[in-house]
Amino acid sequence: MDKFGLPARYLGTQRKSVWEEYVQLAADYNPLDLGQGYSDFLPPEHIISALDQVVKNKNVLLHQYTRGCGHPRLVSVLSKLYSRFIGRSINPNTEILISAGAYGALYCTIMGHIDDGDEVIIIEPFFDCYESMVVTAGGTPRFVPLRFNNNSSSELKSSDWTLNPEELENAFNSRTKAIIINTPNNPLGKVFTESELQMVADLCKKWNVMCISDEVYEWLVYEPQRHVRMASLPGMWERTVTIGSAGKTYSITGWKIGWAYGPANLIHNLHVVHRNSIYACTTSLQEAIAIGYEKELDCLGQDNCYFISLPRQLEQKKNYMADFLSKMGMRPVIPDGGYFMVANWSSLEPEIDLSAENDKYKDYRFTKWLTKNVGIQGIPPSAFYSEPHKALAETLVRFCFIKQDEKLRRAARILEEWKATK
Amino acid sequence: MDKFGLPARYLGTQRKSVWEEYVQLAADYNPLDLGQGYSDFLPPEHIISALDQVVKNKNVLLHQYTRGCGHPRLVSVLSKLYSRFIGRSINPNTEILISAGAYGALYCTIMGHIDDGDEVIIIEPFFDCYESMVVTAGGTPRFVPLRFNNNSSSELKSSDWTLNPEELENAFNSRTKAIIINTPNNPLGKVFTESELQMVADLCKKWNVMCISDEVYEWLVYEPQRHVRMASLPGMWERTVTIGSAGKTYSITGWKIGWAYGPANLIHNLHVVHRNSIYACTTSLQEAIAIGYEKELDCLGQDNCYFISLPRQLEQKKNYMADFLSKMGMRPVIPDGGYFMVANWSSLEPEIDLSAENDKYKDYRFTKWLTKNVGIQGIPPSAFYSEPHKALAETLVRFCFIKQDEKLRRAARILEEWKATK
Ligand SMILES: Cc1ncc(COP(=O)(O)O)c(C=O)c1O
Ligand SMILES: Cc1ncc(COP(=O)(O)O)c(C=O)c1O
Repeated sequence: MDKFGLPARYLGTQRKSVWEEYVQLAADYNPLDLGQGYSDFLPPEHIISALDQVVKNKNVLLHQYTRGCGHPRLVSVLSKLYSRFIGRSINPNTEILISAGAYGALYCTIMGHIDDGDEVIIIEPFFDCYESMVVTAGGTPRFVPLRFNNNSSSELKSSDWTLNPEELENAFNSRTKAIIINTPNNPLGKVFTESELQMVADLCKKWNVMCISDEVYEWLVYEPQRHVRMASLPGMWERTVTIGSAGKTYSITGWKIGWAYGPANLIHNLHVVHRNSIYACTTSLQEAIAIGYEKELDCLGQDNCYFISLPRQLEQKKNYMADFLSKMGMRPVIPDGGYFMVANWSSLEPEIDLSAENDKYKDYRFTKWLTKNVGIQGIPPSAFYSEPHKALAETLVRFCFIKQDEKLRRAARILEEWKATK
Repeated sequence: MDKFGLPARYLGTQRKSVWEEYVQLAADYNPLDLGQGYSDFLPPEHIISALDQVVKNKNVLLHQYTRGCGHPRLVSVLSKLYSRFIGRSINPNTEILISAGAYGALYCTIMGHIDDGDEVIIIEPFFDCYESMVVTAGGTPRFVPLRFNNNSSSELKSSDWTLNPEELENAFNSRTKAIIINTPNNPLGKVFTESELQMVADLCKKWNVMCISDEVYEWLVYEPQRHVRMASLPGMWERTVTIGSAGKTYSITGWKIGWAYGPANLIHNLHVVHRNSIYACTTSLQEAIAIGYEKELDCLGQDNCYFISLPRQLEQKKNYMADFLSKMGMRPVIPDGGYFMVANWSSLEPEIDLSAENDKYKDYRFTKWLTKNVGIQGIPPSAFYSEPHKALAETLVRFCFIKQDEKLRRAARILEEWKATK
C-alpha cells in the first residue's frame, strides 16, 4: 500500500483532461489550431497600456500584497458595474471575491458550499472542471442535458438545445444543494432566455437551492440576443453566486483573474476557502483590470466600449466560420453567444475513414483524424458531458473563432482543398 | 439550521487571522508600519524591466493560458537552479509545480497529501496557514515548539531556540503522514543547522514520513550562516516537498508566484490539486520571473547576483534595528535569516499600562498599545503558535526590517522620543 497516494477526495477526478490530451496532439501534429479557447490576436490596447503603466508606476505598493479577497480598486469598479446590471447596490467588501480566474472562483464557490452528501445539478454540456470540483468537495453531481429539438432541415441554432422541464424538475430533491448553469454556454453558444432561467429560478426557490451561474462570456452575445443575469431575476439575488472572468472579457486568459459575486452570506463561504487556499491574487493585474473596467463603465453602451466592440468584431468571424464549415459539408450550429461554434459532421462520415483511431467516442476519433489528416484541430464536445450522456455529442465538433481573419481564411482554404480531393 | 453554512471541513479554521486584524488596526491608527512582511522599496530594476518587456512583447501567447502546472520557461530555469543545489537532476515537468504563491503551493501540498485521520507535525512558531490547511484536509496537527535555551544575560540569537529531541521524537507515531518545517523561520529568523535537520530527517525515515520544507526565505541568510536544504540530505529527496516563492525572493509579494519541488510521485498529487483548483498561473509573470532567474543563474555566487546582494543590503538594516530596539530597552533576537526580528519587551512592562486592551495574550495587548500610543506597529508572535503554546511568545513582538532606511530612522526616532518621556 502506498502511504503517499492521493487522498480519497481526489479518487475519480484524475482522468486526463481533454485539454492536456489535445494540447499534446497539437504539439505532435502541428495542425492549424481552432481547438483551444483563446484569441490569437493582441488584447485591446488600453488594457495592455494600463498594465504597462502599473508596472512602471513608482508606487511600491503595486508590487506587494493587496487585500486578500480583492484589490480595493477592482472590487470597487466591479461593484459599480454589476450594481447597475443587477439593479441593487453590491457591497464591494462582502459581496465580491476576486480569485485566480473564473476557475479559482468556481473552486471557492463549490468548496465553500458543497459538503459530503450534497447533490449538485449540472446542466450539460458543461465546463469540465465543475464535475471534478463537486466530487472533490464530497458532493454528487446529477446531470441534466440540454436536449436537441429541431427536426426541420433548416439552419441549426444554439437555441435548438433546450431544457426538458420535467427532466429538470425530476433532478431536484431534498438533498439538492446547488445547480450550476453556464450562460452563454461553452461549447454550444446557447444564451439562456429569460423564461428558461425563470424555470430554473422557480425550482431553486421551491427546493431552497442555490444557483451557481457561470457567466464568463457575459459580454459576448450576438444581436438580437441579450444576456440575462440569473441574479437579476426576482428573488434570485439571495441565492445566486455569479462567476465572471477578466480573462474572457479582455481576451487575456493568461492573466488568470476572475471573480464571484452574490449576497454576503453566500460569498462569506468563498472568502473562507480563498483565505485557506491562495489568500490573494496579483496586485498589479487587478489594478490594471480595474483601470480597464473604469474605462468601460464610463462609456457603457457606446460604440467604443469594449463590451460592445468585441462582439461586433466577432460576429463577422462567426459568420465566416459558419459559411466555410457549411461549404465543406458540415452543419454549423449558429451560436447566440461566446466564441465557440459546434458543428455536426455526420454527413462527412461516409467519405472518411476513422478506423485508425480507437477512442470510445466517435467525436474523439473524428477530431483526431481531422488533426492528423486534414491539419485542423477542433475539440470533441463529448468531453463536456458526463459518461452516460457522451453519446449525445458524438456527431459534433467544437471550433473556436476568436482568431485572426488570416487564420480563419487559412482554415477555410485547408478544408476546401480537402473537400476538393474527395 | 442554515442550509448554506460552511461545510464541516472549514469549521474551526475560521477565526479572524492576525493579518486581517492588524491591517485594520493600521488603517484605523495610521502607525509607522513594521508589521506586515513586505518591502517598502522598489523591487530590483531587472525584474521590473523583465515584466515590462513581456507586457509590451507582441507575442500574443504571453497573454494567454500557459501550461497548467508551470510555464515551460520558468520550470526549466528552476529545475536548473535547484538541480545544482540539491545535487541531482530535477525534471521540470514532473518534479515542479508553479502555484499562486508559496501559499498556493503549500495548499496543493497539504490537500494533495493529507487525508482524514492523518497526523501532521508542525514545528512552532509556524506560518499560520499551515494549521488551517491541515485541518481542512482532514488531518490533525501535532505541535512541537522550538524551546528557548539561553540563561545567560548576553545577546539573544535566533539559534537560542532549538528542538528538544525527545519532544520531537514523541510526536511521531504510525499515523504521522508529514512534518512541516520552515527554515529560515518566520518569525524567529532561525536558520536550522544541518544537524538539526538531520535529526528531523532521521525521524522521517524511521517513521516513513514526508517532510514539507517551507524555504521561502532561502536566499535571505546572514553570514556566516548558510541555508541547508532538507531535500539535499541523504535519503531525503525522495520524501521532501520543498516550497519556494518568487514573491519573497524578489520582494514582489504582490505577484503571488511560488512553487513546490520534489520527487515525481509526491509532486503528482500536487498537480492533481492544482488542476482541480486554479489550473494555471499568470503567464506573463511567470515569463518575467523566469527571465530574472536566468540572470541570477548566470551570475550565481557573484556580487551582482541578487541572491547575494539582497542579504548584504538587509544585514545593515538588521543591525540598525537591533541597535535601536536595544536602546529603547527591548532585547532583540538577532536573526540568522529572513527579514523579521522578534524582540523581548518584558523589561518595558513596569513602565507601561496595557489595561486599555483586553486581548487574552499579552503580546496582543502590547502591540495594540504600541500602535495606539507610540505609533509603531508590530505583530504579536503568539499568532504563530497553537493555542496551548501561545504563552511561550507573550513577551515577544515581531518587527519587519525590509524597509527603507529613512523609515527605519523614523522608527528609531519615535521610539527614542517615547523613551525620553518616561
Ligand atoms: C464556461 C467557462 N467557465 C470558466 C472558465 C475558466 O475561466 P478563467 O480562464 O477565467 O479561469 C472557462 C474557460 O474556458 C469557461 O469556458
Ligand atoms: C514562512 C512563509 N511561508 C509562505 C509564505 C507565503 O508566501 P507567498 O507570498 O509566496 O504566498 C510566507 C509569507 O509571509 C511565509 O512567511
